[in-house]
Amino acid sequence: MEEFTLVKDFAIIMAVAGGVTLLFRRLRQPPILGYLIAGLIISPYTLPIPLVENIDTIRLLADLGLVLLLFGIGLEFSWSKIRAVGLVAPIIGGIEIFTMFALGYGLGQLFGWSTLDSIFLGAAMHISSSAIIVKILRDMGRQNLLSSKLIVGILVVEDFAAVIIIAVLSGIATTGAATFGDIGSLMLRLIIFFAAALGFGALLVPRIIEITHRFHSREALLITSISLCFIMALLSEYLGLSVAAGAFLIGALIGDTKHSKEIDQVVTPVRDMFAALFFVSIGMLINILQFKSFIFLALATSALFILGKILGNTLGTFLCGFTGRTSLRVGTGMPQAGEFSLAIAKTGVDSGAVIPLLYPVVVATTAITSFTTPYIIRLADPITDLLNRRASEPIKRYEASFSNWLHGIRNAFSSRSKPAQEIQHSGRNVLVNFLLIVVLIGIGTSAVQFVDNIATFTHLRPDILGLLISFLIVVLCVPALIAFWRNLRLLIDETIKYLLSRRSSARALNQETLHTIIRGSIMVTLSILLAIWSIPLIISLLSLGSFAIAAPIILLAILIYFLSTSVRNIHSQLETTF
Amino acid sequence: MEEFTLVKDFAIIMAVAGGVTLLFRRLRQPPILGYLIAGLIISPYTLPIPLVENIDTIRLLADLGLVLLLFGIGLEFSWSKIRAVGLVAPIIGGIEIFTMFALGYGLGQLFGWSTLDSIFLGAAMHISSSAIIVKILRDMGRQNLLSSKLIVGILVVEDFAAVIIIAVLSGIATTGAATFGDIGSLMLRLIIFFAAALGFGALLVPRIIEITHRFHSREALLITSISLCFIMALLSEYLGLSVAAGAFLIGALIGDTKHSKEIDQVVTPVRDMFAALFFVSIGMLINILQFKSFIFLALATSALFILGKILGNTLGTFLCGFTGRTSLRVGTGMPQAGEFSLAIAKTGVDSGAVIPLLYPVVVATTAITSFTTPYIIRLADPITDLLNRRASEPIKRYEASFSNWLHGIRNAFSSRSKPAQEIQHSGRNVLVNFLLIVVLIGIGTSAVQFVDNIATFTHLRPDILGLLISFLIVVLCVPALIAFWRNLRLLIDETIKYLLSRRSSARALNQETLHTIIRGSIMVTLSILLAIWSIPLIISLLSLGSFAIAAPIILLAILIYFLSTSVRNIHSQLETTF
Repeated sequence: MEEFTLVKDFAIIMAVAGGVTLLFRRLRQPPILGYLIAGLIISPYTLPIPLVENIDTIRLLADLGLVLLLFGIGLEFSWSKIRAVGLVAPIIGGIEIFTMFALGYGLGQLFGWSTLDSIFLGAAMHISSSAIIVKILRDMGRQNLLSSKLIVGILVVEDFAAVIIIAVLSGIATTGAATFGDIGSLMLRLIIFFAAALGFGALLVPRIIEITHRFHSREALLITSISLCFIMALLSEYLGLSVAAGAFLIGALIGDTKHSKEIDQVVTPVRDMFAALFFVSIGMLINILQFKSFIFLALATSALFILGKILGNTLGTFLCGFTGRTSLRVGTGMPQAGEFSLAIAKTGVDSGAVIPLLYPVVVATTAITSFTTPYIIRLADPITDLLNRRASEPIKRYEASFSNWLHGIRNAFSSRSKPAQEIQHSGRNVLVNFLLIVVLIGIGTSAVQFVDNIATFTHLRPDILGLLISFLIVVLCVPALIAFWRNLRLLIDETIKYLLSRRSSARALNQETLHTIIRGSIMVTLSILLAIWSIPLIISLLSLGSFAIAAPIILLAILIYFLSTSVRNIHSQLETTF
Repeated sequence: MEEFTLVKDFAIIMAVAGGVTLLFRRLRQPPILGYLIAGLIISPYTLPIPLVENIDTIRLLADLGLVLLLFGIGLEFSWSKIRAVGLVAPIIGGIEIFTMFALGYGLGQLFGWSTLDSIFLGAAMHISSSAIIVKILRDMGRQNLLSSKLIVGILVVEDFAAVIIIAVLSGIATTGAATFGDIGSLMLRLIIFFAAALGFGALLVPRIIEITHRFHSREALLITSISLCFIMALLSEYLGLSVAAGAFLIGALIGDTKHSKEIDQVVTPVRDMFAALFFVSIGMLINILQFKSFIFLALATSALFILGKILGNTLGTFLCGFTGRTSLRVGTGMPQAGEFSLAIAKTGVDSGAVIPLLYPVVVATTAITSFTTPYIIRLADPITDLLNRRASEPIKRYEASFSNWLHGIRNAFSSRSKPAQEIQHSGRNVLVNFLLIVVLIGIGTSAVQFVDNIATFTHLRPDILGLLISFLIVVLCVPALIAFWRNLRLLIDETIKYLLSRRSSARALNQETLHTIIRGSIMVTLSILLAIWSIPLIISLLSLGSFAIAAPIILLAILIYFLSTSVRNIHSQLETTF
C-alpha cells in the first residue's frame, strides 16, 4: 500500500489546513494566516516525527499552486479596473512602489545583507496582497467606497509592476550578478516574452477559448484554461523569466475574453485548493528552531512595511487630490504582504542566489501583517475623526486649503476650458521634470554599482569616482530642477486663480499666503520622497568610504536646510494669517 | 531551474490532454477517450525520448485523482435517486451484476488466468461508468425519459455494489489468497468501516459542513470537503480496504447534507482536473509495444461486456414489467466501462496480486466502449422499430401478452386490493426462493475453491469431492425449487385473473394458452440466468477433472432438455392459438 503515501500526506495537510483555517475564520483572521500556521504545525522542523513523508512532492505541488495562484490573480486583473480609477492609480502606485523599494533595500543593507539580497527584500516589500485585501474589503462591505476602488486600482498597478520585477529579478538571480550584457539580454528576453504573450494572447487565446466555449462544457473550459496557463508559465520559464510572470500574464489575457467569468468560476476552486497547498508548504519550510535568528528581522521588516505602506499610500492619495479621510483609508488598506511577496522570496531563494533567511522573514511578515491588517483597516476612520477633533484651527485651515488646491488641479484635468488647459500644461511639466530627476537618481544608483569595475579600469580611487558620479547627477538635475520650480510656480498661480474664480471658500486666505503654504508643502513632500528614493544611492556611496561620503553629507545638509526653511515659512504664514 | 520540472510535466500533460479532448469533443466522442489517448501519446513507452520526467509524481497525483473522482461520484449519488425508481433498480442491477460477474469470471478462465485474476476481471466488467453515461444522456437530451431514470437508478446500485466489491477485493488482494479467516477479518473490518462511516457521517459530517457553511466562503467549503474526503479515504486505507471506497462513501454522506449542491459546484472543477490527470496517467501506463499481447483479449472483453450488458439489462428491465422499447433503451444505455473498472484494475494490479495484463485489457475496454457507446445508445429505437415491423403476428402477440402479465405484477405491487395482495405474496415467495437458489449456487462455488484443501485433509479425491458438493447443492436446491414452482403457478394464475378482470385486451387469449406461454417464458429466462450465474461453479468443477465433470454435464443436459421442452410448448401453443 506504499503507493498511497501521497494520499496520506494530502489528508494530513488538508485536515490540518481545514481545521486551522476554520478556527481562524471563527477568530475573524484571514485564512492565509491559518494556512501558514498549519504548515508550521506539520513542518518536519516542528514535529519530532515527520508527519508528511513526500515533502519533495508536496513542494513540487506547491509550484503548481504558485502558478495557479498567479493565474487566478491575473484572471481577476483587468484593464477596465485601472481605467475606472484613471491616471490616479499609476501615480499613487508609482510613488508607493518607489518608496517601499527604497525602504526595503535600505533595511536589507541595515541587516548587512548583500546588494542582491537587499534588492529582493525591497521587491518583496513593494507589493501588497490583492487576494487578501480584496477579500477583507468585501467581507467588511466596503467594496463600493471610493477608497476601495482606489485600493483595487493601486493593487492592479502593483501586480503588474511585480510581474515585471519578478521577471527581471529571476533573470538576475539565475545569472548570479548583473552585468550590462546580462541586463541587455534580459531586457531582450523580456521584450520577446511580452511580444509573444501579447501576440499569442491577442490572436490565439480568444479563439481557443471561443472554440472551447462552444462545447458548453465547464470541464473543457477548465482543462483548456489550465493548459494555456501552464504552457505560458513554461514558455516564460524557458526564457529565463519566472513561471509566475507567465501565469499572471496569460491569466490577464484570458480575463479580457468575454467568457472570463465562467472561466473564473471553474478555475477558482482549483486555484483555492492549490493555493492552500502553496501556503501550507511555505509554512512547512520555516524552521521553528531558527526562530531567534529571523524573528527580529521579521518584526523590523513588518514594522517598516506597515509604516511605509501607510505613509506612501496616504501621501500619494492625498497628493492626487483626495480628502484626508479617503487618503488614510487607502493608506491603512494596503499594509498586507502576501502571495507575490512569497513568490519573489521563493524565486530568489530557490535560485540559490539569495540569502535563505529572506524566506522566513517574508513568511513571518506575511503572517504578521495578515494578523494586523483587519485592525489597521478599522483604524482609518477613528484616526481621521480624532485628528479632526484635536487639530488646531490653523492646521485644519492649512489641510483644507492644500486639499482644495490639489482637488482643483485634479478637476482641471477633466475640464477643457482655457485656464484648465494651462493648468494641465504646467502640471504635466512638473510631473515630467520630477520624473526626470527620479530617473537621473536611478541611473546614478546603478552607475555607482559599477564604480569598482570602472575604478580598476581607469586607475582612479572608487570613492573619488563615487563623488564625481554624484556631483554629475546633481549637475544633470539642475536644468530639470529649474524647469520644475518654474512650472510649479505657474501651476500654483494658475490653480489659485482658477479656484478663486470658482470657489468662494478659498477667498478666506489671501493669495500670497496660499502661494507660500502650497509651494512649501509641495517642496517638503517631494523632498521627503526624493530623500527616501535616494536611500539606495546614498547607501552605495557610503559603502565606498572617504570622499564619497561627502556627497550624501552635503545633500543631507541641503535637504535639512531646505526642509526647515519651508516648514518655517509655512508656519509663520499660518501664524500671521490666522 | 530544476525545481520546475513538475510544472513542465503538468504543462505537457494538460496541453496534450486539452488538445486531444477538444478534438474528441469535436468528433463527438467522450473526453475520457481523449484523455486515455493523450496518455498513450505521451507515454514513456510510446515516445523515444520521455517527455514527462516525474512519472512517479504524476502517478501519485493520479491517486489523488482517483480519490477525488470517486468522491465526486459519491456526491452525485443519492438515496433519493434510488427511491425515485423504487425496488426496480436493485432487481435489474442485481440480475445484471451477477450476469456480468459470471461472464467476466468465465472469460478470465478462458484466457487461462488464475481464479483471483478472473474475479478481478469479473468485478471490473460488472460496472458501467456513471460519469460518462449520465453525461451522454444529458448531451442527447434524454435525461427525462423513463429509461434514463432507470439507467441512473441501476448505475447507483452498481456504484454502491462496486464500493463493497472493491473493499472486499482489495482486502483479498493484499492478503494474497482468501482463506475463511481472512474473509472473516475482512468482513469485520468492513462492518467497522461502514459503522464508522455512518456514525461519523450521521453525527459529524452535517455539523462540520454546517459550521463551515456559516462562513459563506466557497473556499472554506472546498477545503473542508476535501479534507473530509481524504481523512475518510485514509481511514479506509488503514483498515485494509481501498481509498476509493472511503472517498465514495464520504461523498455520498456529504451529498445527503443540504449544502450538497454548493459543495458539488466547488468540488467539480478540482475533480475534473484530477480526473483528467488520472485518466491520462492510466493511458500513460499502457505499453504500446505490448499491443499484440492484449488487443485480442481486450476485443473479446469489450465484445462480451457490450453483449452481456445489453442482454442483462434489457432482460432485467423487461422482467420488471417495462415495455420492450424501454427495456432495449436501458440495455443499450449501459455498455460503457469507466472509472470504477479502472479503479478495480488499479487496486488489483497495484497490490501485485493480479496479472499486470488486466490493466491494459480494462483500459482498452474502457477506450473501445467509450468509442462505441454513442452509436449503441442510438441503436435502441431503430432496433425496436425494425423488430416491430418485421416480427410475425404470433411473436408480437406473445411479447404483448407476456409484457402485459409482467406489467400486471408490477401494478399489483403498488395496489392494496385483495387479489393484489395475493399476487404480492406469491411474487415475494418466487423472488425469495429464486434468491435462495442463487445463494446456494454461490456457496457451492466458494466451497469448490477449497476442494483441494479439504481433499488433503480428508484424503478423498478432489474430483469426487467436487461431485459430492455439486450434488449436495442440487439436493439443497430441491425444496427451494418446489416452492418456487408452486408459487410461480400461483402468481401466474392470480395475475391472469387480475388482468382479465381489468383489461379487455388480455381476453383475446384463453387462460390455458397464457399459462403455458408465461410459465414457459419465465422458466426459460430464469434457466438462462441461472446457467450464466453458474459459470464460475461449472468452471471450477471442470478444472477438478474426471468425476467432477459429470455434474456439469448432467446439469447441462437437464438444462437443454428443459429449455427445449419449454420453447416447444410455447411454440405449439402460439401455433394453435393464432
